[in-house]
Amino acid sequence: MTFPNDKTPPVAPEESERTLRFAGLPTFGRLPRLEEVKEANVAVVGVPFDSGVSYRPGARFGGNAIREASRMLRPYNPSQDVYPFHYSQVADAGDISANPFNINEAVETIEAAADGLLATDTRLMTLGGDHTIALPLLRSVAKKYGPVALLHFDAHLDTWDTYFGAEYTHGTPFRRAVEEGILDTSALSHVGTRGPLYGKQDLEDDEKLGFGIVTSADVMRRGVDEVIDQLRQRIGDRPLYISVDIDVLDPAHAPGTGTPEAGGMTSRELLEIIRGLSECRLVSADVVEVAPAYDHADITAVAASHVAYEMVSIMSKQMAPAYWSKP
Amino acid sequence: MTFPNDKTPPVAPEESERTLRFAGLPTFGRLPRLEEVKEANVAVVGVPFDSGVSYRPGARFGGNAIREASRMLRPYNPSQDVYPFHYSQVADAGDISANPFNINEAVETIEAAADGLLATDTRLMTLGGDHTIALPLLRSVAKKYGPVALLHFDAHLDTWDTYFGAEYTHGTPFRRAVEEGILDTSALSHVGTRGPLYGKQDLEDDEKLGFGIVTSADVMRRGVDEVIDQLRQRIGDRPLYISVDIDVLDPAHAPGTGTPEAGGMTSRELLEIIRGLSECRLVSADVVEVAPAYDHADITAVAASHVAYEMVSIMSKQMAPAYWSKP
Amino acid sequence: MTFPNDKTPPVAPEESERTLRFAGLPTFGRLPRLEEVKEANVAVVGVPFDSGVSYRPGARFGGNAIREASRMLRPYNPSQDVYPFHYSQVADAGDISANPFNINEAVETIEAAADGLLATDTRLMTLGGDHTIALPLLRSVAKKYGPVALLHFDAHLDTWDTYFGAEYTHGTPFRRAVEEGILDTSALSHVGTRGPLYGKQDLEDDEKLGFGIVTSADVMRRGVDEVIDQLRQRIGDRPLYISVDIDVLDPAHAPGTGTPEAGGMTSRELLEIIRGLSECRLVSADVVEVAPAYDHADITAVAASHVAYEMVSIMSKQMAPAYWSKP
Amino acid sequence: MTFPNDKTPPVAPEESERTLRFAGLPTFGRLPRLEEVKEANVAVVGVPFDSGVSYRPGARFGGNAIREASRMLRPYNPSQDVYPFHYSQVADAGDISANPFNINEAVETIEAAADGLLATDTRLMTLGGDHTIALPLLRSVAKKYGPVALLHFDAHLDTWDTYFGAEYTHGTPFRRAVEEGILDTSALSHVGTRGPLYGKQDLEDDEKLGFGIVTSADVMRRGVDEVIDQLRQRIGDRPLYISVDIDVLDPAHAPGTGTPEAGGMTSRELLEIIRGLSECRLVSADVVEVAPAYDHADITAVAASHVAYEMVSIMSKQMAPAYWSKP
Amino acid sequence: MTFPNDKTPPVAPEESERTLRFAGLPTFGRLPRLEEVKEANVAVVGVPFDSGVSYRPGARFGGNAIREASRMLRPYNPSQDVYPFHYSQVADAGDISANPFNINEAVETIEAAADGLLATDTRLMTLGGDHTIALPLLRSVAKKYGPVALLHFDAHLDTWDTYFGAEYTHGTPFRRAVEEGILDTSALSHVGTRGPLYGKQDLEDDEKLGFGIVTSADVMRRGVDEVIDQLRQRIGDRPLYISVDIDVLDPAHAPGTGTPEAGGMTSRELLEIIRGLSECRLVSADVVEVAPAYDHADITAVAASHVAYEMVSIMSKQMAPAYWSKP
Amino acid sequence: MTFPNDKTPPVAPEESERTLRFAGLPTFGRLPRLEEVKEANVAVVGVPFDSGVSYRPGARFGGNAIREASRMLRPYNPSQDVYPFHYSQVADAGDISANPFNINEAVETIEAAADGLLATDTRLMTLGGDHTIALPLLRSVAKKYGPVALLHFDAHLDTWDTYFGAEYTHGTPFRRAVEEGILDTSALSHVGTRGPLYGKQDLEDDEKLGFGIVTSADVMRRGVDEVIDQLRQRIGDRPLYISVDIDVLDPAHAPGTGTPEAGGMTSRELLEIIRGLSECRLVSADVVEVAPAYDHADITAVAASHVAYEMVSIMSKQMAPAYWSKP
Repeated sequence: MTFPNDKTPPVAPEESERTLRFAGLPTFGRLPRLEEVKEANVAVVGVPFDSGVSYRPGARFGGNAIREASRMLRPYNPSQDVYPFHYSQVADAGDISANPFNINEAVETIEAAADGLLATDTRLMTLGGDHTIALPLLRSVAKKYGPVALLHFDAHLDTWDTYFGAEYTHGTPFRRAVEEGILDTSALSHVGTRGPLYGKQDLEDDEKLGFGIVTSADVMRRGVDEVIDQLRQRIGDRPLYISVDIDVLDPAHAPGTGTPEAGGMTSRELLEIIRGLSECRLVSADVVEVAPAYDHADITAVAASHVAYEMVSIMSKQMAPAYWSKP
Repeated sequence: MTFPNDKTPPVAPEESERTLRFAGLPTFGRLPRLEEVKEANVAVVGVPFDSGVSYRPGARFGGNAIREASRMLRPYNPSQDVYPFHYSQVADAGDISANPFNINEAVETIEAAADGLLATDTRLMTLGGDHTIALPLLRSVAKKYGPVALLHFDAHLDTWDTYFGAEYTHGTPFRRAVEEGILDTSALSHVGTRGPLYGKQDLEDDEKLGFGIVTSADVMRRGVDEVIDQLRQRIGDRPLYISVDIDVLDPAHAPGTGTPEAGGMTSRELLEIIRGLSECRLVSADVVEVAPAYDHADITAVAASHVAYEMVSIMSKQMAPAYWSKP
Repeated sequence: MTFPNDKTPPVAPEESERTLRFAGLPTFGRLPRLEEVKEANVAVVGVPFDSGVSYRPGARFGGNAIREASRMLRPYNPSQDVYPFHYSQVADAGDISANPFNINEAVETIEAAADGLLATDTRLMTLGGDHTIALPLLRSVAKKYGPVALLHFDAHLDTWDTYFGAEYTHGTPFRRAVEEGILDTSALSHVGTRGPLYGKQDLEDDEKLGFGIVTSADVMRRGVDEVIDQLRQRIGDRPLYISVDIDVLDPAHAPGTGTPEAGGMTSRELLEIIRGLSECRLVSADVVEVAPAYDHADITAVAASHVAYEMVSIMSKQMAPAYWSKP
Repeated sequence: MTFPNDKTPPVAPEESERTLRFAGLPTFGRLPRLEEVKEANVAVVGVPFDSGVSYRPGARFGGNAIREASRMLRPYNPSQDVYPFHYSQVADAGDISANPFNINEAVETIEAAADGLLATDTRLMTLGGDHTIALPLLRSVAKKYGPVALLHFDAHLDTWDTYFGAEYTHGTPFRRAVEEGILDTSALSHVGTRGPLYGKQDLEDDEKLGFGIVTSADVMRRGVDEVIDQLRQRIGDRPLYISVDIDVLDPAHAPGTGTPEAGGMTSRELLEIIRGLSECRLVSADVVEVAPAYDHADITAVAASHVAYEMVSIMSKQMAPAYWSKP
Repeated sequence: MTFPNDKTPPVAPEESERTLRFAGLPTFGRLPRLEEVKEANVAVVGVPFDSGVSYRPGARFGGNAIREASRMLRPYNPSQDVYPFHYSQVADAGDISANPFNINEAVETIEAAADGLLATDTRLMTLGGDHTIALPLLRSVAKKYGPVALLHFDAHLDTWDTYFGAEYTHGTPFRRAVEEGILDTSALSHVGTRGPLYGKQDLEDDEKLGFGIVTSADVMRRGVDEVIDQLRQRIGDRPLYISVDIDVLDPAHAPGTGTPEAGGMTSRELLEIIRGLSECRLVSADVVEVAPAYDHADITAVAASHVAYEMVSIMSKQMAPAYWSKP
Repeated sequence: MTFPNDKTPPVAPEESERTLRFAGLPTFGRLPRLEEVKEANVAVVGVPFDSGVSYRPGARFGGNAIREASRMLRPYNPSQDVYPFHYSQVADAGDISANPFNINEAVETIEAAADGLLATDTRLMTLGGDHTIALPLLRSVAKKYGPVALLHFDAHLDTWDTYFGAEYTHGTPFRRAVEEGILDTSALSHVGTRGPLYGKQDLEDDEKLGFGIVTSADVMRRGVDEVIDQLRQRIGDRPLYISVDIDVLDPAHAPGTGTPEAGGMTSRELLEIIRGLSECRLVSADVVEVAPAYDHADITAVAASHVAYEMVSIMSKQMAPAYWSKP
């Protein structure tokens, strides 16, 4: 391939006919570490924190499992016609070490670390960890962009209030975020929702917070293209944050997660919907709740790595310098 | 939530912001045991019997695996807009101990136990066990309701005659049931059928018995809503028994079963079809053939627990007292 | 069943009400071994070779895993209305032992062994092994039929040039085959393609070689019937070779493979497409890249066994004597 | 068997020639629930808490996995010549629900619940949960018996000071306990210790706290009988608490745990040592750190259930009424 | 190697520098099938029957799993200095198909099939199946040799009376055998016994039947050589039957079995004891209770295949013609 | 801890009360990468090559699995009273990429890379990969030290001649090494040998090459201390290379390997023997044949990481500067 300009190209993963993808340290996509390139347009960062879960823990190992699976990713993304690791600088920023014994302290640590990463012209692709981490990430993003549109793929609403008296858990980040005014309440969507709830009030509260819902069954009935159209209209040109709880996928596609619910989406549907939003202004994203102890043959981690790759593709393309033009 | 009337509400699972769903004994849905509430409108009962299988055994552990997975079920079912554990009394009736070394005796034991449970105004949600158990359950149901309509989700027909000389096995319950006159032969349906058969005669015999077939490929081609319409018409207002062999799902969705066949339905399709029949008069139901030794991360048991939950929702709603009105 | 003629019928698997399918040696479908019947119309042959893989090895155990799973296959295929093991003689030809330490020698060994099997009026159903083996098989087939149409189900293109200097690997068979003139370049199709590539050039090269692509997402959007129509037209009445890399299925359906990619096809789609081509002139076929060490509860092997069964059904029907007529 | 006296015998698990051990709810050993018998001499209680772990979480599911495995336990223990479920009343007290999001609160909850259980003439057999829970249990025990001797089976010392600023974690309970004066520092023993440490200071601190160490290699070299003799002398007739971290076993015997270390003890050694201490005055005990997500075929849970059974046997025999005499 | 005489040597597995052990059909040790060699000195036969189990079923797949694992066996056994597959004719006799739905009929079928195999000068190495099958095998052996000495490796006694009214189950074969007078009650030994029992009466009954017990803990304490000496003296020159329930091994060594008990023997101990008895007159043997659904990486099947290999070695050496002399 | 001198201490893994061991990239022991410290006294290097295996492949993923498991290693080794990561500089040198499609080229690549690493005052701790890699490593070591003593832990001899015509495979490295004169034939030992062989000639050839054998059964019978004494005498003060094929462990302890044999050593025995040789002059070492696809809960990788840690401890202590003195 030829690089899009005559300037120094981004440092990309070594890819040639003599590269063993199973050799070397598992940075995401075998990308350079952030410290090697100093500054990145898109930083992939792990948050190995899972002390906010209400059922099966283990997502603390999720980020590294996704990285290990991401060895298989290659540099050209035909579904978006993009070379995500070449259009702008993408790098692996390592992990944010958050206190596993103190949720509130952990939330602060994550926010501070995200602030640091976003201090440059950088977008974040975060690998969880449990969904608790979305709140500090959104706080940090909102400091930079103001309230953002949220596209939330999940089996669950994650807009509960408290659990065992804790206000920060993996079931509460988006209620907190709305309360804190860091989400643009005119553009909040859940996709893939399904399964039993604690009560009808959950739905009513959720609607009041501003969320629209596309259930998993809706995706099957209406098809991905109609869903994409609806989401595009709802999001418009707002700065967008996408948060993907991997349990949005059916347990067949994502056994390795903490609160599985039957009747979920396929990975093909999820990937196609994200690809369909490639023109939206994606300012940061996360993939959370991969719990490798429950995975098999890495299929959950592989799915998560592809989801992250698509979102990195969107961000890398948008961060590419102005002189870059689509082939 | 408010209860539907000013009378004593049913005893429901403890659900609050301080309940650990992973604590305590695994009754279905963390419901009270039948002995605690004396009498139930819907009784969930296990039949840990698998001596009728022709390939992989292990479904004797199925019921308890489904119960363990059902810890995650919550009290409100948004897809039917029902609180199944609150509208009428649902309880876990424990297990029926059937002789693993003598199929005929076991069939009698199960029938007698089901008779006992149905002696009150109760509907049964049975957790298998292998499919052999459907026959004694149907016998018991037919004593109460007369011949019933049957909706049978399964990869297989289960209308073989004998196997190794045995008339009661997991491949023969519905032929026996027709022979015994306990099914309404104007409303018999298989859904999800697929895979090789012993001979064309199997299909011909099955048709003569009165069954209609919606194959797994039909579900994909025609979509769930068309299938629902067809089933609704076929069933009408007859008393209905639904029997779900979990192998109706693709092995991707239900690896934990004894005779897997590729090309199956998704759990989303199965759940949506059942939800689509929520107005049918469901008098009892079973979920069978969950073999946990072949499951992974409980995905089969989770799917089965959701299937049972939907059927419990239908029955609980229909068993709710007359003064109850849908919110 | 009655046999289609008064001649000596093919030797078929013992199938009666007293056969334990889990007993006895695991030939494919519990068929006779080739040496027992001397000559077969369709020979199922294993090639336990996986030294051409670029990521996870282990497909050397694939063929025997498929055979073990194929114990469950029964003699009548209702989706094609065919008794594949009775219409013509199908037999298990055992395994071709190819040198695991020398790819070039192995490729020669496989070609020679295939030549031997094809010397009679026989079609091959080959169980891999990795995709490297498709090249010697195609060479052998082309010697008999001339350049053949190719229908290639795979997540990947497998038209790379070299890898680590090796021209024969599991990523290169179809480029080699086109270069050698053994494929009919007017009828080459990939189905199920998805995932990242090394570069856009891969797509351009592939197109130049003559391939058309139906991606996995295309199958979801357009439905299997439209895909079947398109493939039928492209294939016409050319002699056809179908090569199925099991990774064409989503990892949910086929975890047991070496280079899994999210967003794949379901086994139901794959089986229906193959069934839709039952009138095409299928002269030989393979199923490759089943890696049992990554499988769970044999779901990948079960899917592969059903895929092979459908292709055997097509070939057996076409090899049936002229006096046979469809019931 | 004949019961030891003419009084009302304890309520024991149903055991006859017609009991299916795989049927019914999984209380420990299929014992009655505490609420059924009101008061027990030995109460088996679960503490599904694992928020104190430093590596792999998941022990919150440990107690119920041990219970499920304990279905296989039978009523006569030949190695101690005791009927543990008949000599005194043993019952399953269910689970203590401790706040997963607040360790300090959880520690208080556990202590209060243990106080409640120990308020009667009861000894506790606790099923963890992670090792954090040993501290509140020891507090409660010491209120009743004064400082107790401690026999601690573990790969690790668990006498660290703090971790991430937290004083209560699974690595610190025994330092805290010594500091609080609730252990008899003349009789503290670690058995099965092995593996790397943070520093030599860990050993020095541990010795200062009063601990003696029998490493896993010591057990192999010296044999279980010599170890038993040494422990018996050290313990004497002091009230004894035994705390078993299942990771004292080699990962071969206990893969299902959070911080596995190679070179561990066999389950046979562990069981024999405990049996060898059957005359010691065991006042309460725990088995912790069973993490089922990492277990295989329940082998860790089976081992833990046998360990608990031996300790219940000791306590039940000692709690048997005076008129009981060993046959 | 040179064959022991100038006569036609036995047909042995193909073993050379160009044999792929993972290719071809999995007869035991890749031996010829019995039908190929007409008559064998040692016949390896499978009995895929598991309808006599009281807990986890699945041993019906045990024999074929052992065969699959036995691909790795090589022709020279250095621990006995024997070429078992060359000294006399060893062959794989396939499987005995016994009715899974009728235990009594199955027991008869197995006995009749064993009678047929023993009609020639043949010794049997049987691969289970569950332990029920030992009774018909012993009946058949006793018809030929009179009452035989029994060496029984097992965690359990298997001398219960009835279970659920059934006299033939996997817990009763040796009581039945003593009752039928087919065992030499002066030479009956259990080795590896451990774990809880239903009552002390079990031990007393067992002793009355004539059994001596070497517990698993005895093996650890006394060492294999002392155990071997004791067994040799007890057995003397009586015709000996060895029955190995694989659960004699610790679950670490044999997770793939139906009723695991902690504290078991190592595979090294078991193999050494059997090797130590190589001069005993072993007339037939079995290995039972391998349940592959609970196995991992085939470790149970590998252990069982080695156990069978040692016993085949003993029998083959003893069946070698008189002109053969030990090197 | 205090460092052994006032000079700049080695760069060691971050270890404090606030380090999450599960965070960050998995270098061995969380050590610095070699490129960060420029030069190391002990370099841990991976060789992800497994094209030389004769049965189950997959060891190409072994090194990274060991690294992942090694996150749990801590800095102080009490069994040797050594801080291996502090006494001299230990670093992770990454992976050597060897051509998976050409064994001879791969062997050359590995040798050249090892030469490069040994060019400084460095000892190698290599993580395989299959056993083929021992040959080029020994070549490189011998260039520096002359013929070395070899201590070879393995179930197998690995002194075969050729296999399928290949002279370099995982079964031949030590025959080749003796032929090439790079081993000191007065000090060659196999430890842990067991299982069937191709022929008695294998043993005779092996003895002629100069090897002594301590079988796995010998270790059990004689105890580790006697074995240690014998090995120490045989090795003396010769430069020593230790090669550990993880299949020396019983499959219970190391399921994750390619050619498992029952009756193996425990990890405790292996670790104690290595520790017992801590005064031997260990110049380089390897741990090979870890095949993660067959591992469970990482127990094989954990065992391998501990084995490597002990050998690193020996080398690091010996490489420590002269002014270092044992505390």
